[in-house]
Amino acid sequence: MIDLRSDTITKPTEAMRKAAYEAEVGDDVYGEDPTVLKLEEKAAEILGKESALFVTSGTQGNQIAVLTHCRPGNEILLESESHIFYYESGAVAALAGVQTRTIAGDRGAMNPMEIEASIRSVDQHFPETGLICLENTHNRAGGAVLPVSNMAVIYSIGQKHHIPVHVDGARLFNASAAINQPVTAFTNYCDTVQVCLSKGLGAPVGSILAGGKDFIASARKWRKRLGGGLRQVGIIAAPAYVALTEMRERLSEDHEKAKQLEDGLNSAGLKVINKVETNIIVVDVSEFNITSEQFVEDLKNEGVLAVTFGPTLVRFTTHYDVNPQEIEQTIVLVNKLVSSY
Amino acid sequence: MIDLRSDTITKPTEAMRKAAYEAEVGDDVYGEDPTVLKLEEKAAEILGKESALFVTSGTQGNQIAVLTHCRPGNEILLESESHIFYYESGAVAALAGVQTRTIAGDRGAMNPMEIEASIRSVDQHFPETGLICLENTHNRAGGAVLPVSNMAVIYSIGQKHHIPVHVDGARLFNASAAINQPVTAFTNYCDTVQVCLSKGLGAPVGSILAGGKDFIASARKWRKRLGGGLRQVGIIAAPAYVALTEMRERLSEDHEKAKQLEDGLNSAGLKVINKVETNIIVVDVSEFNITSEQFVEDLKNEGVLAVTFGPTLVRFTTHYDVNPQEIEQTIVLVNKLVSSY
Amino acid sequence: MIDLRSDTITKPTEAMRKAAYEAEVGDDVYGEDPTVLKLEEKAAEILGKESALFVTSGTQGNQIAVLTHCRPGNEILLESESHIFYYESGAVAALAGVQTRTIAGDRGAMNPMEIEASIRSVDQHFPETGLICLENTHNRAGGAVLPVSNMAVIYSIGQKHHIPVHVDGARLFNASAAINQPVTAFTNYCDTVQVCLSKGLGAPVGSILAGGKDFIASARKWRKRLGGGLRQVGIIAAPAYVALTEMRERLSEDHEKAKQLEDGLNSAGLKVINKVETNIIVVDVSEFNITSEQFVEDLKNEGVLAVTFGPTLVRFTTHYDVNPQEIEQTIVLVNKLVSSY
Amino acid sequence: MIDLRSDTITKPTEAMRKAAYEAEVGDDVYGEDPTVLKLEEKAAEILGKESALFVTSGTQGNQIAVLTHCRPGNEILLESESHIFYYESGAVAALAGVQTRTIAGDRGAMNPMEIEASIRSVDQHFPETGLICLENTHNRAGGAVLPVSNMAVIYSIGQKHHIPVHVDGARLFNASAAINQPVTAFTNYCDTVQVCLSKGLGAPVGSILAGGKDFIASARKWRKRLGGGLRQVGIIAAPAYVALTEMRERLSEDHEKAKQLEDGLNSAGLKVINKVETNIIVVDVSEFNITSEQFVEDLKNEGVLAVTFGPTLVRFTTHYDVNPQEIEQTIVLVNKLVSSY
Repeated sequence: MIDLRSDTITKPTEAMRKAAYEAEVGDDVYGEDPTVLKLEEKAAEILGKESALFVTSGTQGNQIAVLTHCRPGNEILLESESHIFYYESGAVAALAGVQTRTIAGDRGAMNPMEIEASIRSVDQHFPETGLICLENTHNRAGGAVLPVSNMAVIYSIGQKHHIPVHVDGARLFNASAAINQPVTAFTNYCDTVQVCLSKGLGAPVGSILAGGKDFIASARKWRKRLGGGLRQVGIIAAPAYVALTEMRERLSEDHEKAKQLEDGLNSAGLKVINKVETNIIVVDVSEFNITSEQFVEDLKNEGVLAVTFGPTLVRFTTHYDVNPQEIEQTIVLVNKLVSSY
Repeated sequence: MIDLRSDTITKPTEAMRKAAYEAEVGDDVYGEDPTVLKLEEKAAEILGKESALFVTSGTQGNQIAVLTHCRPGNEILLESESHIFYYESGAVAALAGVQTRTIAGDRGAMNPMEIEASIRSVDQHFPETGLICLENTHNRAGGAVLPVSNMAVIYSIGQKHHIPVHVDGARLFNASAAINQPVTAFTNYCDTVQVCLSKGLGAPVGSILAGGKDFIASARKWRKRLGGGLRQVGIIAAPAYVALTEMRERLSEDHEKAKQLEDGLNSAGLKVINKVETNIIVVDVSEFNITSEQFVEDLKNEGVLAVTFGPTLVRFTTHYDVNPQEIEQTIVLVNKLVSSY
Repeated sequence: MIDLRSDTITKPTEAMRKAAYEAEVGDDVYGEDPTVLKLEEKAAEILGKESALFVTSGTQGNQIAVLTHCRPGNEILLESESHIFYYESGAVAALAGVQTRTIAGDRGAMNPMEIEASIRSVDQHFPETGLICLENTHNRAGGAVLPVSNMAVIYSIGQKHHIPVHVDGARLFNASAAINQPVTAFTNYCDTVQVCLSKGLGAPVGSILAGGKDFIASARKWRKRLGGGLRQVGIIAAPAYVALTEMRERLSEDHEKAKQLEDGLNSAGLKVINKVETNIIVVDVSEFNITSEQFVEDLKNEGVLAVTFGPTLVRFTTHYDVNPQEIEQTIVLVNKLVSSY
Repeated sequence: MIDLRSDTITKPTEAMRKAAYEAEVGDDVYGEDPTVLKLEEKAAEILGKESALFVTSGTQGNQIAVLTHCRPGNEILLESESHIFYYESGAVAALAGVQTRTIAGDRGAMNPMEIEASIRSVDQHFPETGLICLENTHNRAGGAVLPVSNMAVIYSIGQKHHIPVHVDGARLFNASAAINQPVTAFTNYCDTVQVCLSKGLGAPVGSILAGGKDFIASARKWRKRLGGGLRQVGIIAAPAYVALTEMRERLSEDHEKAKQLEDGLNSAGLKVINKVETNIIVVDVSEFNITSEQFVEDLKNEGVLAVTFGPTLVRFTTHYDVNPQEIEQTIVLVNKLVSSY
């Protein structure tokens, strides 16, 4: 099976396993795990923020950010198909009591003027706008990179209205690789950011939430409430450290494999609907008069795994555990399948 | 001053004041206020539902409906500019922990196919779709009447997917007057409904939430939690009863006054942007290169009150306390103002 | 029937009905109801606070206080059988996300040292102590008056630890009458206070929440979220004004009737278990080997209404609508009943 | 340093590290991590429940249990110093909107009659009693074992009133070792249970929540909302499996070391205030006229770590990483310190 469902399926490398095996550990609830302290310090440095917090997932990092920035009765502005809105089980309302106001983006990028127009004025009928959330790269926009310029304008709007900006940067290192600039090119324009160390970087478990010192201190308490205060966390912080420090460089390889796949899918007559900038390719199978579920099923029978991304949309994701030969083979198998329709 | 800001400014009639004065009362928390019992029974009958509950406002009725139908982690589907989303201070998230998923409507009416496409499938990443909310007439769509046919299709989708439908019918009696049919023409196609007895009907205070017997029993408890369990409520239930039973017939007069005003505003060179079906007229003042705030201010100086409805939009609302002569005078004053630009 | 279930059953007086009939009204959501403005100003003055807000019930006033003072993850300190904990349907947790930490009081008064010991230190395992709630008079402690001295010490503890103090003063005017001092003797020692204008004062509907200017501004928004933003509220604010300004003096009459009843019940062989300071008498019927439910039922058959207050406890409450003759008659009927056991 | 602060400081064994290194992994959000599936199956079997879920901490397991069993406006019954009430940052109110009603226990065991008396009757003033929570062993009661008989009676009360019973069994395997019976002796008398694999069992990270199939399915979604849905979780599930299967037997050694320490502390003139049944010893230092903070500080200077457990209380906890020789040495050092007072 060639598994292109998600980069989340990446397995830990030998170096990561070894790091877990040898990890120096301590009780992190007492603040005594040296490995997680080292990881948090390194992550803060790379992300250009004062402080960082290790959390168990991207969802947890995002939820803690919203819980810390906002209070019930606030409204947050975010993209119509952003992960926080679309894929986090309604948690921002359930846990933080925060209303979601969505704005449809262009390749994931919201129009700054629409954002400014959506900020609520002071009126007892209105929730207070408490947070602007961006997602970079944007998953449902096909791994699209939010331009630095877009983030810069939105951040200045946030500052003007005293509204913080949080970036769901689960795949922010992919964005960084795509524009060939350090990740701070983006994080300069936000108050807080969440990045995943699993996904393309390959850590078995874990994400980082970064921001100002006071913010992270409050976030730590919300992490405890969510049950994310762990004990000998070094066991997972150690491989996460390897992911953070040794795996960023190679993300561009995933992007090359995505380009390779895009070309092949196009040749095979599959309609790629996104501009492939990072490691995600989205195709529309409607011309074959089949559902995405059927296509995914058929493709699985050929030996390739992908995921549905809408009634007629299918997503392929490249990652560390798939090599160019397997991409080539995927193209052959897709060709075979498409010919059969 | 001619006050066209809202029908909420309607003052109680002599009959209503007299009803308050003479009201038979008791402690409604003990279920012993005869007047509110009579009102709830009558309202249930008119709305074609098993049971009804007196609440202190439309917002309270809507919030109780969401609290009773849903639980935290649910998602509700509602129109992008619906009152529940736009004007209730983010309360559905703050109180009920429910995520709002908005769908832009056409004159307030959501496309049933979009609704069906927005119902979440079973997946741990997704909130459960817990409620569909409609608004009829739709305030921000300019008092637009949701067609019975639209409601019927949406209701059948709800039933198919086991998702209840709630109608924010703050001005549902206006819709009923506009199509010249009993209100049950609409309420046949929903599980629960909230109607205001203030606004066009002129009661000083109060709304009704109606639905099935079990629903109302649970709603009663949420009303208590919100502090809406009152004592000698007959004092306000009595004028509300007058509003419900004696004032519905006259809503068409408000609609005629709105038509009269629409014609006048058009002649004056103001651009009416909504199809005027009920008692709301929305104009766009952008052609004068002024903001709606400036226009409202200028108009106030002429002796007419209206409200801003967006950066360049202004809303006029007709109601019981304004007569055709005052509408005529309004048109004269608007003409004078527009000429000055 | 002689109804001694609660002072909440008090019916509005002729003066109140007339006030409702003649009330000058306006749309209070626009801040234009002159009657409610007059009421709020008068109430703030009487309570010695900067600002006041009319709410529809004591529960609503208390809930808004907690929502405004606290945020989710806070803990509040309050008496084990206080109304907020015991009788408000768990709303402080449901709406405000606040944990209740209860302290058993002596006749409703918590030991200040226990309060101070219960304030949480800074630790990520602990909720932040966000509010201390007092209840005066204390309903389930049999209408007990919290001594001014107790409140003063608790308030100084609150100030020392930067924790606000809220008083549920649903019957604070009874406490004031009992110690024959103005209500400010108590309200000097709290940040915010809620008082009911129904109950002993006889208004058909309504309570007041009072506090600092900023607090009340925020409270107004939470009132809107709970659906307590009303329209022509003057209709109920007018009788509430009568209650506030004309009915406080007479509360001592209720207390005299309570003493009269206490003596009679004692003579009849019923065990009064509370020190009767205000208008509430609690008796224990366990010596007759019956439940309180049975006793209440039997008493009803004799023509007197009371309420159960525990498995073997029964509460009697005196109020405006019961006169000394009826108290006398009640004693006769109780004697008759007790003899039959 | 001899560290007796908590069993949470236990470091993973060589076998656990090796298990992490070699763990077969997969993406658990897709349900494809074989190691976590094996762990959950084994845990369900040991706990005698249909199904089990791996969570990242005891707090997370408890919170998910409450979120799944209850809905906002419910009340839960739990011991006054239980972990869920005392040490989880108010999360049950913040996340689940649930009111805590505490009952003081005797050595952690609540009186079943008090529990039954605290169950709310049906009344709109009352929250619905939604859950009974027990804690076994009970941390703040000094590691006290809740007797099986106590649990059995409480469980039957729960069943009679249709109220589920959840056990916070962070140290339930200690209870099992103490009575020398399988853990099902206890879990027979609850609907759901949470057990920690860290603490005495030594896993670096992780707890188990177990219960019925439907319960665990719903719990899985709440885990996702809290950010506890992980990816290659096998890395921590593997050492957790070692903890679960190989470390239970040795808990009695911790208990023996605790007895050894208890004897020594007593001889040294320290007042042990709990009946030492498991691995926790609590001493009261008030007779030396010092605070627990001072004592802990002084003891640290001697080379022994313990934690404050109240203004004059100090807790010692034995665990895998401290041996009998170190206990002996601790006693020597305590003697030295006590003599100096």
